[in-house]
Amino acid sequence: MRRFLSQEAAKRFDDKLMGELGFATESLMELAGLSCAQCIFKEYIPDSVIVVCGPGNNGGDGLIAARHLFHFGFRPTVLYPKPTSNLVLTRLLTQCRVLGIPIVDQLDDYSSFSLIVDAIFGFSFRGDLREPFKTIIQKIKESGKPVVSLDIPSGWDVENGNITGEGLEPNVLISLGVPKLCATYFRGIHYIGGRFVPLSLAEEFQVDLPLYPGSDQIVRIN
Amino acid sequence: MRRFLSQEAAKRFDDKLMGELGFATESLMELAGLSCAQCIFKEYIPDSVIVVCGPGNNGGDGLIAARHLFHFGFRPTVLYPKPTSNLVLTRLLTQCRVLGIPIVDQLDDYSSFSLIVDAIFGFSFRGDLREPFKTIIQKIKESGKPVVSLDIPSGWDVENGNITGEGLEPNVLISLGVPKLCATYFRGIHYIGGRFVPLSLAEEFQVDLPLYPGSDQIVRIN
Repeated sequence: MRRFLSQEAAKRFDDKLMGELGFATESLMELAGLSCAQCIFKEYIPDSVIVVCGPGNNGGDGLIAARHLFHFGFRPTVLYPKPTSNLVLTRLLTQCRVLGIPIVDQLDDYSSFSLIVDAIFGFSFRGDLREPFKTIIQKIKESGKPVVSLDIPSGWDVENGNITGEGLEPNVLISLGVPKLCATYFRGIHYIGGRFVPLSLAEEFQVDLPLYPGSDQIVRIN
Repeated sequence: MRRFLSQEAAKRFDDKLMGELGFATESLMELAGLSCAQCIFKEYIPDSVIVVCGPGNNGGDGLIAARHLFHFGFRPTVLYPKPTSNLVLTRLLTQCRVLGIPIVDQLDDYSSFSLIVDAIFGFSFRGDLREPFKTIIQKIKESGKPVVSLDIPSGWDVENGNITGEGLEPNVLISLGVPKLCATYFRGIHYIGGRFVPLSLAEEFQVDLPLYPGSDQIVRIN
């Protein structure tokens, strides 16, 4: 890749997609969440999985991933500790409930899950880790379970990586659309998902797009 | 499949998905359009394709399919003869334009395209074929080109098939969610796409869901 996106560029990139380029939040989120679930299916055998969802769009991607994972034969549980009135997320929660996916607002013990999906914070994250997510991230780390992060490993600075040491160290990272700068510090299995970026937008932001095989929505880049 | 859906049941099925089951139109359409593009990629080598879009949701599925086909290496042109003020479709048209996909409102000659995608009418169609679609369907038939229909072969009665003889006779049919009754009269290559139907909804409508392989969004059922 020629260049990863800074936090400010990622924000402008997203605004363009949903502004002048005409995408609905729900469409982009659906493709992002599907991509995440497909990466997880590639890397892990269907089993119990806890999908930890934050209150923003990254959490929405997680809820969609949980739904697709269910259809792929996983047994997802959603940890959603900080409900909001966001209509998009409220509807995504309903879709999970209809499938019988348990939704909990706290979790003390991660030992019964074979995999943890981190959909807590995305590229908008800045500042210090606050509760309840500070403790949740600590517990995830203590669990020793494999972790898959969506777009940004939660707790990482979006440009400079895990500078506080408090962030997760995922086994798999799925960059959505285009990787953000912090991905340069990531040493695990790295996928890009979300095959929706127009070439004109990539050129404007001077980023290369990956070559997706066939009709796949995901591609491993390392 | 135990049972296909009548027109009235298909309407109630769709209303439930987008009502109490919490789905946004854009999410379902995105998964439907992606499924269509993936079926086409399975059956045809990437080449020039004309995607004929009606003014309703079937046309929206077609616009999304055109966008994904572009990313898969096809060279789509969209024929969109009857513009509406529908915001969802307007945004989907923008997404196609951004990719440089030509959008035309009439077409006299289909001979330069190697494939025709029929996204004209969906399961809401009833009554007689009206212009401009009556002539368009006639021209598509006269072209002798292979045709892929989304959900319903345009011109068919949704329950009783091609009873007037005026409808298309597609090579490939992609049923979205659950096949409608007219699919029992279809003798070509039949796929189901749109892996989003909750088991509880299928049971309520007494329809079986297909077994999708792996993390695929499509499955051929004949």
